Amino acid sequence: MTNDNFQVYPLIDKKKRGEKLTDKEVKWFIQSYTDNKIPDYQMSAMLMAMFLKGMDVSETASLTDAMLESGKRLKFPGRNVIDKHSTGGIGDKASFILAPIASAAGVKVPMIAGRGLGHTGGTVDKVEAIKGFSTALDLDTFSEKLNSEGLVLIGQTPEIAPADRLIYALRDVTATIDSIPLITASIMSKKLAEGANGIVFDIKTGTGAFMRTTKDAKNLAKSLIATSKRFKKKAVALITDMNQPLGNEVGHSNEIIESIETLKGKGPKDLTDLSLALAAHMIHIAGVEKTYEKAHKKALEMVSSGKALEEFRKLLRSQGGDVNVVDDYSLLPMAKVKTDVLAPKSGYIKMFNNTEIGLLLIELGGGRKSKTDIIDHGVGFTFHKKIGDKVKKGEAIFTITHHDTQKEIVADIQKKFIKDVLVLSTLKVKSPKLILDKLS
Amino acid sequence: MTNDNFQVYPLIDKKKRGEKLTDKEVKWFIQSYTDNKIPDYQMSAMLMAMFLKGMDVSETASLTDAMLESGKRLKFPGRNVIDKHSTGGIGDKASFILAPIASAAGVKVPMIAGRGLGHTGGTVDKVEAIKGFSTALDLDTFSEKLNSEGLVLIGQTPEIAPADRLIYALRDVTATIDSIPLITASIMSKKLAEGANGIVFDIKTGTGAFMRTTKDAKNLAKSLIATSKRFKKKAVALITDMNQPLGNEVGHSNEIIESIETLKGKGPKDLTDLSLALAAHMIHIAGVEKTYEKAHKKALEMVSSGKALEEFRKLLRSQGGDVNVVDDYSLLPMAKVKTDVLAPKSGYIKMFNNTEIGLLLIELGGGRKSKTDIIDHGVGFTFHKKIGDKVKKGEAIFTITHHDTQKEIVADIQKKFIKDVLVLSTLKVKSPKLILDKLS
Repeated sequence: MTNDNFQVYPLIDKKKRGEKLTDKEVKWFIQSYTDNKIPDYQMSAMLMAMFLKGMDVSETASLTDAMLESGKRLKFPGRNVIDKHSTGGIGDKASFILAPIASAAGVKVPMIAGRGLGHTGGTVDKVEAIKGFSTALDLDTFSEKLNSEGLVLIGQTPEIAPADRLIYALRDVTATIDSIPLITASIMSKKLAEGANGIVFDIKTGTGAFMRTTKDAKNLAKSLIATSKRFKKKAVALITDMNQPLGNEVGHSNEIIESIETLKGKGPKDLTDLSLALAAHMIHIAGVEKTYEKAHKKALEMVSSGKALEEFRKLLRSQGGDVNVVDDYSLLPMAKVKTDVLAPKSGYIKMFNNTEIGLLLIELGGGRKSKTDIIDHGVGFTFHKKIGDKVKKGEAIFTITHHDTQKEIVADIQKKFIKDVLVLSTLKVKSPKLILDKLS
Repeated sequence: MTNDNFQVYPLIDKKKRGEKLTDKEVKWFIQSYTDNKIPDYQMSAMLMAMFLKGMDVSETASLTDAMLESGKRLKFPGRNVIDKHSTGGIGDKASFILAPIASAAGVKVPMIAGRGLGHTGGTVDKVEAIKGFSTALDLDTFSEKLNSEGLVLIGQTPEIAPADRLIYALRDVTATIDSIPLITASIMSKKLAEGANGIVFDIKTGTGAFMRTTKDAKNLAKSLIATSKRFKKKAVALITDMNQPLGNEVGHSNEIIESIETLKGKGPKDLTDLSLALAAHMIHIAGVEKTYEKAHKKALEMVSSGKALEEFRKLLRSQGGDVNVVDDYSLLPMAKVKTDVLAPKSGYIKMFNNTEIGLLLIELGGGRKSKTDIIDHGVGFTFHKKIGDKVKKGEAIFTITHHDTQKEIVADIQKKFIKDVLVLSTLKVKSPKLILDKLS
């Protein structure tokens, strides 16, 4: 793969002029950067050129491959190893529900999940609300547990796609994050490295998503599916609404409780519907069921029979988590005080500035401002109203769970929510559709 | 000017999205970079975004101003302080001719010139072929000599536009050189710093120029003129042909001799015509003559009367150069051996790959491959044929002046010239027009 005939400058120049880079050129560039042979300032110029001039499907595949090859790559036999990837949003705890459902149905689910940074929370942070649960397993243990348990959840490891980590850190400070080919390669290199044979994507769109418009979300979905196909992986993408929190709970313990409730069949409709749909696609592309309809029926059965909840218990046991949490939520860290945020006038909820909800949670300590911040799992928001709901003046829109010492912050959140987050309408508002599109 | 409310990331993001940066934003960014508060990798991302999304006239002016303000700025009273800037080409020694002509006519000419790097030679390197001539004067001496002598020539100094030097070094390795707004700001910041009240631009186009097409050359000319006007400087730009060497001589001593011959009225037509035209524009915008036609007549008189040659002698005396050179060329370093390069067949000269001629001179030692190389002033090329000329098989197209020890290199140059540089036609070829356009 190494070819010393390439030079940095002509390759930046080529991409800058909008020309297509060859597979060898992309791979040489990424490998040289990872090997510390190309300085950051040349890589950042290249990234900006890639961002502004774009990368086609084959260039994106080369980039994916280069980042994939920079680290370890797991392989599992059989077509039933299926992962799910969500582009992230507010209150997105679907992984905790769909993974046990799919696993109970016979799908093997290898999850390497992230921590929260920015306005969205992280799956790894959320599961750590459960005492004892360890996400710091090495890749050998990860593989063993996938084989023995059928379900495993760990955090990012430096062995997987180190080139992606280096490049992501540079993109993060050079305004080159929101590029579809760069996002695609970053996601795909990690998903391919963890050995999944099929992937179900949940591409979120709206005020709380990285992709603000449905058009951008669809473009990302198409790019992810095209790249999956080039690597001979089955792939389905749902485009889903992120203009309000998914479910009613936002915050770490809050979301774990809501996930368990949903596994018990008592979850809110939106979270239940989306988790079932995503799990059903996993069950379908794994080949467990021949049609999506049958797979969906199977997913429902896994919940109603209690088998999915049993899988969740098995996951906790397997990774050292306190299994009693499932039946006793008081074992989760939880702040003591609850304060309602009230509607300032009557009307219909028209819109939430959803990203802002994530930022308000960070204010409360339920997220990170910088990488080294410690998360408070016990604070959160419980929404009583969603878009389209009628509210009366003085009625609680959501409840803040917080500590006694946080009264000033809570007052600030109340103020900001009314000012920056909530949009009320005097006219009736339609509840938004949850699953906007499906691509495969 | 400093405003700590700005942040690096949002400004890169803004430019990346194609939005216009404000004057304060541009200046904060450049000053912070120059003060080492912004790392190279963020600056290079910004430069690529500026390159690909463009900068309008006011952004370019802000960039110019920011780089200008990073260093010292000279000011001279009176409208008769006029400089000339050439974008560089093969055999371009017009400065040595036009500056004494303009100076003899009463224009004050402050020249801060560059060294050669890449395929084009540098004015400072060329004048150093003259024993004793010092270009390393400080800015105070530069100012004094401009006032007392009316003509002064020095090299780049770290006191002038240090931001430009830092940014240019980064552009040089990140493929962001050939951007019209970035080139404009780089040129203009230096020209404005040296205190000229008017500038005559020689924008070269063709196979030996940075601007390969006339369209690009005109766009650069328009940008330079627009920026000059924003800084209330008079400006004229000539678009001139650089598809073949200017004059017949290429190489350091060779070019000094040809310059002196031209000042004596015995120069080749193209070099004479262009030098007179550029000098005439300087004389005109300095207000010495009311019309260009009168200024041109004045320029001619300065040559025919010997006054321009006398100014050149004065320049040499003023800066320690051996004035006897003017009458005795043997005082210049000159290699001993001459070898002709012969036409491989009969025909008309259709084209030179002119950049390649500059690179062949570097092979011979008459230019730098890296910044620390020492230039051999005594090697060069003397052209006997130009585009449109008829040549017979075996007739000399040019003569290489070289050292005894360089036979292998010379053989290589002969081969490469025939293979890569010369294009012969069996059909008659028109001699190209020298001055293609004038913008002001």
